[in-house]
Amino acid sequence: MAPQLDGYFSQVDASANEYIERLRAAVAIPSVSGEDGRRPEVVRMAEFLRDELVKLKVDHVELRPLGPQPDKPHLQLPPVVLARYGKDESKRTLLVYGHYDVQPAKLSDGWHSEPFELRYDEETGRMYGRGSTDDKGPVLGWLNAIDAHQKAGIDFPVNLLMCFEGMEESGSEGLDELIRAEAKKYFAEADAVCISDNYWLGTERPCLTYGLRGVNYYSIEISGPGADLHSGVFGGQVHEPMTDLIQVMATLVDPQGKILIDGIAEQVAPVDAEEEALYDKIAFQMKDLYTSLGSETAIYDEKKPSLMARWRYPSLSLHGIEGAFYGEGAKTVIPAKVIGKFSIRTVPDMDIEKTNAAVVYHIEKEFAKLKSKNSLKAYPQHCGNWWKASPKHWNFAAAAKATKRVWNSEPDFTREGGSIPVTLTFEEALGKNVLLLPMGSSTDGAHSINEKLDKVNYLEGTKLLGAYLHYFAEEPMTN
Amino acid sequence: MAPQLDGYFSQVDASANEYIERLRAAVAIPSVSGEDGRRPEVVRMAEFLRDELVKLKVDHVELRPLGPQPDKPHLQLPPVVLARYGKDESKRTLLVYGHYDVQPAKLSDGWHSEPFELRYDEETGRMYGRGSTDDKGPVLGWLNAIDAHQKAGIDFPVNLLMCFEGMEESGSEGLDELIRAEAKKYFAEADAVCISDNYWLGTERPCLTYGLRGVNYYSIEISGPGADLHSGVFGGQVHEPMTDLIQVMATLVDPQGKILIDGIAEQVAPVDAEEEALYDKIAFQMKDLYTSLGSETAIYDEKKPSLMARWRYPSLSLHGIEGAFYGEGAKTVIPAKVIGKFSIRTVPDMDIEKTNAAVVYHIEKEFAKLKSKNSLKAYPQHCGNWWKASPKHWNFAAAAKATKRVWNSEPDFTREGGSIPVTLTFEEALGKNVLLLPMGSSTDGAHSINEKLDKVNYLEGTKLLGAYLHYFAEEPMTN
Repeated sequence: MAPQLDGYFSQVDASANEYIERLRAAVAIPSVSGEDGRRPEVVRMAEFLRDELVKLKVDHVELRPLGPQPDKPHLQLPPVVLARYGKDESKRTLLVYGHYDVQPAKLSDGWHSEPFELRYDEETGRMYGRGSTDDKGPVLGWLNAIDAHQKAGIDFPVNLLMCFEGMEESGSEGLDELIRAEAKKYFAEADAVCISDNYWLGTERPCLTYGLRGVNYYSIEISGPGADLHSGVFGGQVHEPMTDLIQVMATLVDPQGKILIDGIAEQVAPVDAEEEALYDKIAFQMKDLYTSLGSETAIYDEKKPSLMARWRYPSLSLHGIEGAFYGEGAKTVIPAKVIGKFSIRTVPDMDIEKTNAAVVYHIEKEFAKLKSKNSLKAYPQHCGNWWKASPKHWNFAAAAKATKRVWNSEPDFTREGGSIPVTLTFEEALGKNVLLLPMGSSTDGAHSINEKLDKVNYLEGTKLLGAYLHYFAEEPMTN
Repeated sequence: MAPQLDGYFSQVDASANEYIERLRAAVAIPSVSGEDGRRPEVVRMAEFLRDELVKLKVDHVELRPLGPQPDKPHLQLPPVVLARYGKDESKRTLLVYGHYDVQPAKLSDGWHSEPFELRYDEETGRMYGRGSTDDKGPVLGWLNAIDAHQKAGIDFPVNLLMCFEGMEESGSEGLDELIRAEAKKYFAEADAVCISDNYWLGTERPCLTYGLRGVNYYSIEISGPGADLHSGVFGGQVHEPMTDLIQVMATLVDPQGKILIDGIAEQVAPVDAEEEALYDKIAFQMKDLYTSLGSETAIYDEKKPSLMARWRYPSLSLHGIEGAFYGEGAKTVIPAKVIGKFSIRTVPDMDIEKTNAAVVYHIEKEFAKLKSKNSLKAYPQHCGNWWKASPKHWNFAAAAKATKRVWNSEPDFTREGGSIPVTLTFEEALGKNVLLLPMGSSTDGAHSINEKLDKVNYLEGTKLLGAYLHYFAEEPMTN
């Protein structure tokens, strides 16, 4: 029997402005976990969530401290917001996860408006702001769902456990330990887990996601002179760290995306016929990709190799260089110490340690070839494993029904190129199925300038999260 | 007959604190010409110099506007400070040049103290601050010399024309045109030119400089996506501009400093026996270089090839990348547009146009090999030619005598790796000899963090500039 949801849906529509204002207040807090100076803002964002949850009269909420940041002991990690709504033993219990920290953003990066001021564009229905879609909108979606049930006087169908962290964009430091410690305590009653922190494949068809790539993030540190030098005075006499770094970085990946490090491709699981067939059904067109890219500079011109490159093959991206000149104009500097940053997206059956060993070996080998007097340090900054779940589990079945109800469309079953390492930790520590249930669409531009969440995705997404709880409460428990 | 200079020297010593305070006030103005937002500070620095010159009762001073900046028409170029002290037709006239703008500097770059607050370290006698040695100290040296003559009641031996610009660190935009326009007007009476904007070769022996390398500064702009992308979502599907840029940059120079662009080495004048012999006399030890570098990461272990690499061979330095991630920590971004910055130091007999053509041809050829769908633009940002003068000219003879008088040491006759393109413009436009007479020493760290000028170099340097004027006034005019 399909749940009665009309009252809930009407309430979400009636409260739309209030929910948008809640998102505006959240976006206004620049909770950038990757910038030390903004750590207090990250904490302020945790306090904001706590205060909102208190207003919603949840049964319990706390800011759980995680102690000092391992690589920067002078900095305290942002707390995890732990909360529980409902303690009815006759109901199922769902654990939801989200993150309240965001990527760095500056107006000068090319934003059309202040990144930390939510801007609604009436014409397109887009709400621009850092964190709007990644992941403040979805986190607030859960709060909105509680609120709308209360206002509409509808019984909340599940016990909801919430776990919102503040270090997702910086390697989720400290979270794995907390999840493992609470697996049989705070999280003990969870029947399944739901994470809303990814995106539709395109802009029209919703999806449920059952696989993620992992990410290993690396630094290549090359240093020589004691301080930056004038390139006129010293150019030609000295081994320049930038020259060495560029040489080493050039050996990592080719312009067609092929990883040039021995020992990576060998670890990738082969494609079988069942997987091969699956790609044809997916609602995805190259023009969706071109829209997301804002260009037609895709490596592959066909859907299947393009999706495979995103979902099931590793990729290597060069992100940038710390310590070199990065401004506009001209600076005639020889940087004394430069740190190249790159990451590898990992897939089944790659192993983190094996991959790290192959990467460091490769870098050291390439650096040795240069015969430079400079010094090299190559090391992984943080690593998160890939994840692949069963899309036939009842948790997915419930979400699929909710999706059909709200969006009037069967969801695509997809994998994702991005990494949410905590997914795997939840699965392993709790031994429960984990579902990824996205709110935003492919054009949202998470991690990019002009990040946005469409108003329709925020509001229908709030309906979806709430509807899912009802289906979750009554779906037969099959694996 | 040697000039009477004791009264002048005593006065400089007596006014030492006043001159240091003048430098402190100048350093406090962050006149960074390369940062658009600081343009008003550059103008403020010009006004500071004008006000100081007015106090010294010079015959004329003006801030000559140069109009809008060609590549940024919304920005006005900083004015040139033009001044004249003395109009006695029986005296010779010297034109001096310096610059009042500075390189960018931020405490977070690794400065031990605020870059725009002069910090005097009693123990080492060093005065730290951006612009202390490059080039505010030397510019103020001329003002101090006027002041000390006035206070000591000593007749000023020459008519002094002054030309202080505010765009030296950003390609001296607009200055060439001004010099050419004023060559037969404001600068018409100049008998020679003196520029104090370079450094001793080491820390103990002063030098006179008769040659400079030029500099051609290039940008390689590679763009693809419409905005920065998330490397998880899009990694593997898209041609990444960073991958292409790193590949191209890696083809420019090898780790031993060898330029890999065809058509550069072919233009370099061969070494003859006379030049070869010259290097043995120079007071330079590899340990001086190691001190300047703060490391032993020199390419050559011997004096001669090391000096040749600095003075008479071209070099290529990779400075950095605009548009890529440059912060601490980790950012999983695929930058949409990246601009690689590098420069080539040029030497006799290299030709600017020929070199630019070779560079752009090389970059376009290497980019084509990548078979990328991204777009490339490669272009010179600014170029300044190399310069080589006759060290036997009477202008040099006068400076050599003054050096011997103040420092009790014969100067080395040196060339320089750095570029002061205006040197050549003065020589060509005025048809007069140009002398480079440095104030600071090799460890000053111009363009680097913790730039400094030794107090002794500032005060003895002020004596040197004044003493030089007296010898300049009476040296027989031989070429």
